[in-house]
Amino acid sequence: MSTVHRVFNFAAGPAVMPVPVLEQIQRDLLALPGVGISILEISHRSKEFEAILEQTEADIRTLAAIPSNYRVLFLQGGASLQFSMVPMNLLGAAATADYIDTGSWAEKAIKEAKKVGKVNVAATTKDDNYSRIPAASEITLTKGAAYVHMTANNTIEGTEWKILPAAGNTPLVSDTSSDMFSRPIDIAKHALIYAGAQKNMGPAGLTIVIIRDDLLDRSKARASTLPAMMNYAVHAENKSLYNTPPSVAVYATGLVMKWLIARGGLAAIAAINERKAGKLYAEIDRSGFYRGTAAKDSRSLMNVTFRLSSEMLEKTFVEESTAAGLDGLKGHRAVGGMRASLYNAFPEAGVDALVSFMQDFERRNG
Amino acid sequence: MSTVHRVFNFAAGPAVMPVPVLEQIQRDLLALPGVGISILEISHRSKEFEAILEQTEADIRTLAAIPSNYRVLFLQGGASLQFSMVPMNLLGAAATADYIDTGSWAEKAIKEAKKVGKVNVAATTKDDNYSRIPAASEITLTKGAAYVHMTANNTIEGTEWKILPAAGNTPLVSDTSSDMFSRPIDIAKHALIYAGAQKNMGPAGLTIVIIRDDLLDRSKARASTLPAMMNYAVHAENKSLYNTPPSVAVYATGLVMKWLIARGGLAAIAAINERKAGKLYAEIDRSGFYRGTAAKDSRSLMNVTFRLSSEMLEKTFVEESTAAGLDGLKGHRAVGGMRASLYNAFPEAGVDALVSFMQDFERRNG
Repeated sequence: MSTVHRVFNFAAGPAVMPVPVLEQIQRDLLALPGVGISILEISHRSKEFEAILEQTEADIRTLAAIPSNYRVLFLQGGASLQFSMVPMNLLGAAATADYIDTGSWAEKAIKEAKKVGKVNVAATTKDDNYSRIPAASEITLTKGAAYVHMTANNTIEGTEWKILPAAGNTPLVSDTSSDMFSRPIDIAKHALIYAGAQKNMGPAGLTIVIIRDDLLDRSKARASTLPAMMNYAVHAENKSLYNTPPSVAVYATGLVMKWLIARGGLAAIAAINERKAGKLYAEIDRSGFYRGTAAKDSRSLMNVTFRLSSEMLEKTFVEESTAAGLDGLKGHRAVGGMRASLYNAFPEAGVDALVSFMQDFERRNG
Repeated sequence: MSTVHRVFNFAAGPAVMPVPVLEQIQRDLLALPGVGISILEISHRSKEFEAILEQTEADIRTLAAIPSNYRVLFLQGGASLQFSMVPMNLLGAAATADYIDTGSWAEKAIKEAKKVGKVNVAATTKDDNYSRIPAASEITLTKGAAYVHMTANNTIEGTEWKILPAAGNTPLVSDTSSDMFSRPIDIAKHALIYAGAQKNMGPAGLTIVIIRDDLLDRSKARASTLPAMMNYAVHAENKSLYNTPPSVAVYATGLVMKWLIARGGLAAIAAINERKAGKLYAEIDRSGFYRGTAAKDSRSLMNVTFRLSSEMLEKTFVEESTAAGLDGLKGHRAVGGMRASLYNAFPEAGVDALVSFMQDFERRNG
């Protein structure tokens, strides 16, 4: 199996997965051992699938040290559906929700929340092209807000929060799609965390929601009007089996969680991620030929964004790097330039290969 | 690979998939040929994934002869989310939607629609334990209704519509989760068709929606309040790439579509399905030891439900059949008894094995 040709995949998500996980999925694809049924076929009501779901939740709880008053939900629809589910469940007609606008995805979250209720944009760095996370002094929260919404890592702009905003007693809701679980996270400082699995956790099609018990009361109070599938309490009461879950994505994510635990957990993977991103940022900062787009104190360890002196040179860079087996380096169409996504499963050898390529490219074009 | 032990999987969904499809997924799991990236990892914005999505749509269009004024959407959330999306998109505040109540899933659809607007239950067979499809004379439609909703095949109760209800000019909306694509379907008689993929089409996590162009105007008119992810027009305009689609499920479904086309298409698979179900119903009717629960003229070819003279005997039947490698025959908890789901990919050898088991069981317990 190791002779299969694989490129270095720098895509922003769906993204690279650990090879040992892919190999296990491959090995058991025709039939789970002792079951005789493929994970693509297995009934979600079978005791075997229920065991997979329970074990995946248990491993997530271990990995992130999730307190017992939080529920872990396995849903569908990605962050895009959460942009609506969060306000539909948590934002009453009379209340206001605070949103901190740090990028394109935060903007989308705000747009959807405004369809549901009152939104206060508590801070925005839009005027700086979202190149930085706002300082604490820039954030104006609403007293008695229904919640404060933040985007932990901004996939498109390459920035991330280093210290959580001080939300006080207001429930903090965080879109962690592109940094969960790449570093330790203090769950107890949050009220609700959501993430599409397709960056650090697994394949596309699964959304993980971690929600504090008391927030479910808001969902229950809206049960007569809220669609059942959009109601966090319905999913919590049914242990994520109200409807058919995306079985393959749950299974693959479970294997990735075991891989993360075996690597030493979140602190250990964070050290590796710091080293990987550190190598790339050092190369970007070395000569001035490359230019990082994010403010240094806001730089993301997951998505490293950089530019060259001209769009023509950037086009050449993307073409030549792709040809060299460094795939997916083209930046998001909204910001241009290059983006190297270095999620948990992205191999350090790929960073080294990119740094070598960058040095060679500079020699030829500098 | 053919030495892997597989049981006969009679589960109602997720359900058995074609072995050649599983083998192809397995073979290419570490890297799609010529791409160097697994289908579990590939960017949904890559030209390779876009080609997979386009080919899958093209094959679906070929298979079901879908007219050009219909869109094919690849969504998430299953029929359960469609129960809400349909009324949220199509039912105005002033209008009424007609629902034909033929079983547990129709009831759920009605419950969700009532949260959105006015619902008229145009017919129900609940008093007959949903053992039959209503006759045309029993259906009372509302003049000027926003749409008529039906459930093409009732997975739990084992019944299916043989002739579509006469909806006239009112848009006909059909939940075809458990019979698409198991037999030819006259798309042009419908306005909207939806189905979770996990019965006849692929793994769990993908929902297929086929919607007539003119209905998208209703979605567009509600764009300011409807969540983007719940808006059919948003998904149609973005060719199902508004958000990250469930890539693995799309890919696997695409392979199943090719498998169906290679088998001769919907008329050919329908003939096979009729033969498979026919063998089982013949055995049920043979001696009176087994009792079919669905009225004969309403019998489903997909889900064959039957009972024994006592619940104790049914328990023994399920235990012994499971031990004999006939898995998933326990009926839904709502109706009891046994249910054999015989979707497209269920092998005829499995039906023969079940019939033999039933005859042997009768000899030992009759």
